[in-house]
Amino acid sequence: MVRGELLYEGKAKRVYQTERDDVLLVSYKDDATAFNGQKRGTIVGKGAINNQLSNAFFRQLEASGVPTHWLEAVGERETLVRRLTMLPIEVVVRNVAAGSLASRLGLEEGGRFPRPVVELYYKRDDLGDPLINDDHALVLGLATAEELAAVKQMALQVNEVLQGLLERAGMLLVDFKLEFGRTVDGQLVLGDEISPDTCRFWDLATGERLDKDRFRRDLGRVEEAYQEVFRRIQEVV
Amino acid sequence: MVRGELLYEGKAKRVYQTERDDVLLVSYKDDATAFNGQKRGTIVGKGAINNQLSNAFFRQLEASGVPTHWLEAVGERETLVRRLTMLPIEVVVRNVAAGSLASRLGLEEGGRFPRPVVELYYKRDDLGDPLINDDHALVLGLATAEELAAVKQMALQVNEVLQGLLERAGMLLVDFKLEFGRTVDGQLVLGDEISPDTCRFWDLATGERLDKDRFRRDLGRVEEAYQEVFRRIQEVV
Repeated sequence: MVRGELLYEGKAKRVYQTERDDVLLVSYKDDATAFNGQKRGTIVGKGAINNQLSNAFFRQLEASGVPTHWLEAVGERETLVRRLTMLPIEVVVRNVAAGSLASRLGLEEGGRFPRPVVELYYKRDDLGDPLINDDHALVLGLATAEELAAVKQMALQVNEVLQGLLERAGMLLVDFKLEFGRTVDGQLVLGDEISPDTCRFWDLATGERLDKDRFRRDLGRVEEAYQEVFRRIQEVV
Repeated sequence: MVRGELLYEGKAKRVYQTERDDVLLVSYKDDATAFNGQKRGTIVGKGAINNQLSNAFFRQLEASGVPTHWLEAVGERETLVRRLTMLPIEVVVRNVAAGSLASRLGLEEGGRFPRPVVELYYKRDDLGDPLINDDHALVLGLATAEELAAVKQMALQVNEVLQGLLERAGMLLVDFKLEFGRTVDGQLVLGDEISPDTCRFWDLATGERLDKDRFRRDLGRVEEAYQEVFRRIQEVV
């Protein structure tokens, strides 16, 4: 595949056209941002690790019957994916109270929920990606009722698959963010990435944070955490 | 009914025990607060107007088959209601973009939604009453799935009844807040009040605000707006 025109550059990835109209090349960067871009930095080696981790997770999801944009890894930090028209929604699944949810609802970090919590956020950087409910998504025209139901059902399926994988790797899947889109032929599939940038992974035994919270909260040993997750996941896939 | 012990004093009401264990007396105050209590003032005559307006709305709702706590008006600013164990949830129904929703979602004030938007807020002053979704309500144990479905269905029914009434009175029902609770014998019913304190009413022709936004936003002629709503509603009930 030939790397063509740069279509999009985000906080953590560049997306390029390829010679096939329906196939894009994603290139992962070492850049890290937090708090809606207010905090910026570099996590050395993050691009390569997130690319390979995300590929491992997406392969597992495809094998478990979750439709995704994933096609093929093509290099240490590059992957081919199907072109999607994204829903302007971030779907967050939470198994344990942490981060913004814990503070918004007055909960202690670390409390396990009796059932997974699925949240929708309106993807609008200028508004700070506000939490929305189904009615908001419908009147804003972000998705149809059928799309919302499908997206939530897939998000819970992803949660099942990832929870199993993470547990075998000695980690707790605290929460994670997903994005979905439609392929050129209209199929609704999982897009974006799954990595320590988009998930919270805690060590099962010690509760140690092994994800971007180390960067967000200046906990130190950021690179080591990403490497540790990568090492553990490689052992179980 | 004998006015007994003061059970609760809120921003706009006092609630007293009566000689019947399952009956309470609500007394409406002229005090007004906004922005979670940060702004305080007095709207002369508000207590009497809100009591009588709320009674008119609740009578209409009862006549339309919506179960409520309403029993009997007993004075200009006092009403007897059934004792409820309240759900710690505020239910907001919106027909038109206004207030906090408009700014949170980047919408112009005044845009009519293609369908009503129902929102749940976690009633926690110390957290600023955060917006929640059904999953949050469930894991926080605020209500069961059946209660949430019933509450939303009743909220939409209230919207239908009030929209008709308001339109006959030359007003647009922009949005409103409801609270629900369980009676001593376990029935889920509408509680609290319905008044210009808890609704947005706009003049149908001019768009003039006839509700607490006149106080919140220092628009002037606050007392006159409450009186105007009272006068118009008396004409149509």
